[in-house]
Amino acid sequence: MSMNGAESLVHTLLASGIDTCFANPGTSEMHFVAALDRIAGMRCVLGLFEGVVTGAADGYARMAGKPAATLLHCGPGLANGLANLHNGRRAHTMMVNCVGDQATYHRPLDAPLTADTEGFARGVSGWVRTASHAGTVGQDAAVAAQAAMTMPGTIATLILPSDTCWDDGGVVAAPLPVPVAQAAEPGAVSHVARILRRGEKVAIVLGNSALRAAPLALAHAIAKATGAAIMAQTSNARIERGAGRHAIDRIPYPVDQAVAYMAGVKHVILVGAKKPVGFFAYPNKPGHMYPADAEVHVLARMEHDLPATLQALAAELGAAPVAPVSGSRGEAARGAVTSDGLGASLSALLPEGAIVADESVSFGRGLYPGTHHAAPHDWIQLTGGAIGEGMPLATGAAVACPDRRVVTLQADGSAMYTVQALWTQARERLDVTTVILANRKYAILLGELAGVGANPGRVALDMMDLGNPDLDWVKIAGGMGVEAAKATTMEEFNDLFVAANKRKGPFVIELVI
Amino acid sequence: MSMNGAESLVHTLLASGIDTCFANPGTSEMHFVAALDRIAGMRCVLGLFEGVVTGAADGYARMAGKPAATLLHCGPGLANGLANLHNGRRAHTMMVNCVGDQATYHRPLDAPLTADTEGFARGVSGWVRTASHAGTVGQDAAVAAQAAMTMPGTIATLILPSDTCWDDGGVVAAPLPVPVAQAAEPGAVSHVARILRRGEKVAIVLGNSALRAAPLALAHAIAKATGAAIMAQTSNARIERGAGRHAIDRIPYPVDQAVAYMAGVKHVILVGAKKPVGFFAYPNKPGHMYPADAEVHVLARMEHDLPATLQALAAELGAAPVAPVSGSRGEAARGAVTSDGLGASLSALLPEGAIVADESVSFGRGLYPGTHHAAPHDWIQLTGGAIGEGMPLATGAAVACPDRRVVTLQADGSAMYTVQALWTQARERLDVTTVILANRKYAILLGELAGVGANPGRVALDMMDLGNPDLDWVKIAGGMGVEAAKATTMEEFNDLFVAANKRKGPFVIELVI
Repeated sequence: MSMNGAESLVHTLLASGIDTCFANPGTSEMHFVAALDRIAGMRCVLGLFEGVVTGAADGYARMAGKPAATLLHCGPGLANGLANLHNGRRAHTMMVNCVGDQATYHRPLDAPLTADTEGFARGVSGWVRTASHAGTVGQDAAVAAQAAMTMPGTIATLILPSDTCWDDGGVVAAPLPVPVAQAAEPGAVSHVARILRRGEKVAIVLGNSALRAAPLALAHAIAKATGAAIMAQTSNARIERGAGRHAIDRIPYPVDQAVAYMAGVKHVILVGAKKPVGFFAYPNKPGHMYPADAEVHVLARMEHDLPATLQALAAELGAAPVAPVSGSRGEAARGAVTSDGLGASLSALLPEGAIVADESVSFGRGLYPGTHHAAPHDWIQLTGGAIGEGMPLATGAAVACPDRRVVTLQADGSAMYTVQALWTQARERLDVTTVILANRKYAILLGELAGVGANPGRVALDMMDLGNPDLDWVKIAGGMGVEAAKATTMEEFNDLFVAANKRKGPFVIELVI
Repeated sequence: MSMNGAESLVHTLLASGIDTCFANPGTSEMHFVAALDRIAGMRCVLGLFEGVVTGAADGYARMAGKPAATLLHCGPGLANGLANLHNGRRAHTMMVNCVGDQATYHRPLDAPLTADTEGFARGVSGWVRTASHAGTVGQDAAVAAQAAMTMPGTIATLILPSDTCWDDGGVVAAPLPVPVAQAAEPGAVSHVARILRRGEKVAIVLGNSALRAAPLALAHAIAKATGAAIMAQTSNARIERGAGRHAIDRIPYPVDQAVAYMAGVKHVILVGAKKPVGFFAYPNKPGHMYPADAEVHVLARMEHDLPATLQALAAELGAAPVAPVSGSRGEAARGAVTSDGLGASLSALLPEGAIVADESVSFGRGLYPGTHHAAPHDWIQLTGGAIGEGMPLATGAAVACPDRRVVTLQADGSAMYTVQALWTQARERLDVTTVILANRKYAILLGELAGVGANPGRVALDMMDLGNPDLDWVKIAGGMGVEAAKATTMEEFNDLFVAANKRKGPFVIELVI
């Protein structure tokens, strides 16, 4: 069968198991769009800004366990998606990031939209290729899918000059084998077991696929058997948690708290995690969160099979399974809106099987600790610190898991970056409840400014103030087709939250904090 | 006086004549914010998304004739601003683009927000430097300002690791001299004069600073004296036009129209313009808009003094001044909303001295031709094809020119990319009337899809449809503090437009088309 490059691309993606495409196409992608139209099987989800597209593809992959494709327009379209690709890179998200571009022979003419597409892609991608002609686009797509899915997962960016899509001669490529993740070397397991047996203070830091329910149970068994402390990284792609599962604390975000949390530790053992460091440097504060005299050991890197490695370590230590600590979901909070109160209400009211997309920033620091005993759920989180991913992440998670409720905990300043995500939620009738934490300021920055010893004046305060004029989230959401309501007390929040989670489709709660 | 690096930066920018800063700061910029707070003289304008910040800085510089500074946060914050920096690059906009970043000694720890900041900057900047220590930040800023202001203007990106801002030892640098633009070489002038005297069909293509009123008058004199056709590039940073000025047509955007427009041309003479090429390649269509056998001559490059060069050419040719063609502003249109009708109403009703920010895309193609005889105004336009600049451009122009009305002609799909600009307009009480051209689709793409011969099905149509659900611009604007109203007839539009232009502060008209 004769086909063009774009058709070979779509067929190859489908053959590689990629059946969802988040898209914001432009002129140079029309043949790609036409191919998506002609070939059945690819669900296309439109975003009205590329940051929505890439953040949704990230959220989708975290929950689906396989990559989505994207469809972006030229260098500037890719640029608009970079911040959430950065977050996806930090989450080791699988993604086949397709970027249309100028025809190979038109690029030298330096038309207005011509930009350094590869250059923009490189900083966020584990794999970048620009297709050279239609006949090899299928093969390019198969390699991209393989690269994306190879543990620990990466963003594979495939740039498609428009003539490589419209020219005939496309050939569908068979899926390429994806290497199976291996457990860490036995030597690493026995080394770590020896450290753990010494009785010195040990912190086991878990990341990536070690944060699912089964490996967390193993980590708890190891902790019980050895006295080691276990903890998750500060920012994590996905944690399985809630009632009946083993709770895990995260290393705190503020440097002073993180340093206190890890004080006295003699050995840091990394399990699919990176060395704990501060998000930022501060004058006269350390960069590493663990003591300067601690030794760091790598049990397994993130590309390893972390559950199998923890199983091997538990076996080596003879660690017996332990039951999760049980606790009550508690009662929803009443009265004034506080971070702890919101944590209590979420704990009491979170639906079974929910997915929580967390970009709650400063106000939200009580929400994760407060929900260890909520109904079982997944917690997905901003991983790269580039704000503006909460609502896109939720959008993609909802596409991946249509039978589960998604709850977005969303700081208001950050929400503005990718506010267009609400429209996609309305368009696709996604079951997302968005809680906008409306403090009408960049609250985290006020804390940071105080931290640098500044006594802020009007200019500085103005640069952290979203309150002149107030953003009205009921109107903004309504303007994009999402029903919304405002809550100013915990009782109002509780009622709206329960009602929102029962309905089909999206709802926004503006929680004035 | 002892000062830190950030303070030396602010003092040096002020000394270089840069007194306006569009900002979206983060944690690593707190010392910069504190310095802006302590040092009088810098107007700081907050944007709630970096694309607003960079687009506003672009609009400011086009109208102020000098650069603004920006303040962005780390690699991902820069990434969010890249699309409009791309547009600014294509407009040869002067800008000192300041990007905070990880402290020099923290960068190797690869904290979550760490990204390839320089790599992101390079594709959009004519000058990039990462500051190395506080003692040289002042000098870095002076060089950046010089680079930005050297003709034809460029984006100078200065990356500021946070320790270079907070460390003591800052030294204010004196402003550096900016080279004065020179007229083109006499040889080029006499060569072009010889071509023009031959009587062959010539197209003089004007760009950049040749599109102000005085050089346009000279170009018309040359055209009258020689029979040459004169035309502007398709996309231009700023055109001075309207009643009492010499009108200039632009090369059409659609390839077929552009080719027809330049048919038969034997010589293309570039005056601060690039060779006319299509925005995109299309199968079996040419990339250059002029005939394959035409000769291309460069009278002057964009860094030349274009008015002086045109003056020299007019003198060489003995071309006498010609009066502008006079015409009536005409009557505002009535009845159904059409592109020509909107052009007529704009012609009749545009306020004296208005600044028109044009991102009207497909529906707007009648608006520029229809307004040659409107009250005198400036027309500023999307130059790089990266949609999402109209409202930010207007925001910056309004900051630059507080005594003039700004009118934004804004396609709805494009408006969504940087919708946060409306909040800044409300915050700063800017005199901006935004006309949202609400066709609820990516209309240009429907045309492009038809152009590739596809008979679109549901999937393709869905990817070009903004109508499910409809965006409600009255609510969206209201949610950001900007009053708004909807018009569905030209009469309703006319009334709203006149009223909006008389009020202080911003207003949004959703024009349903």
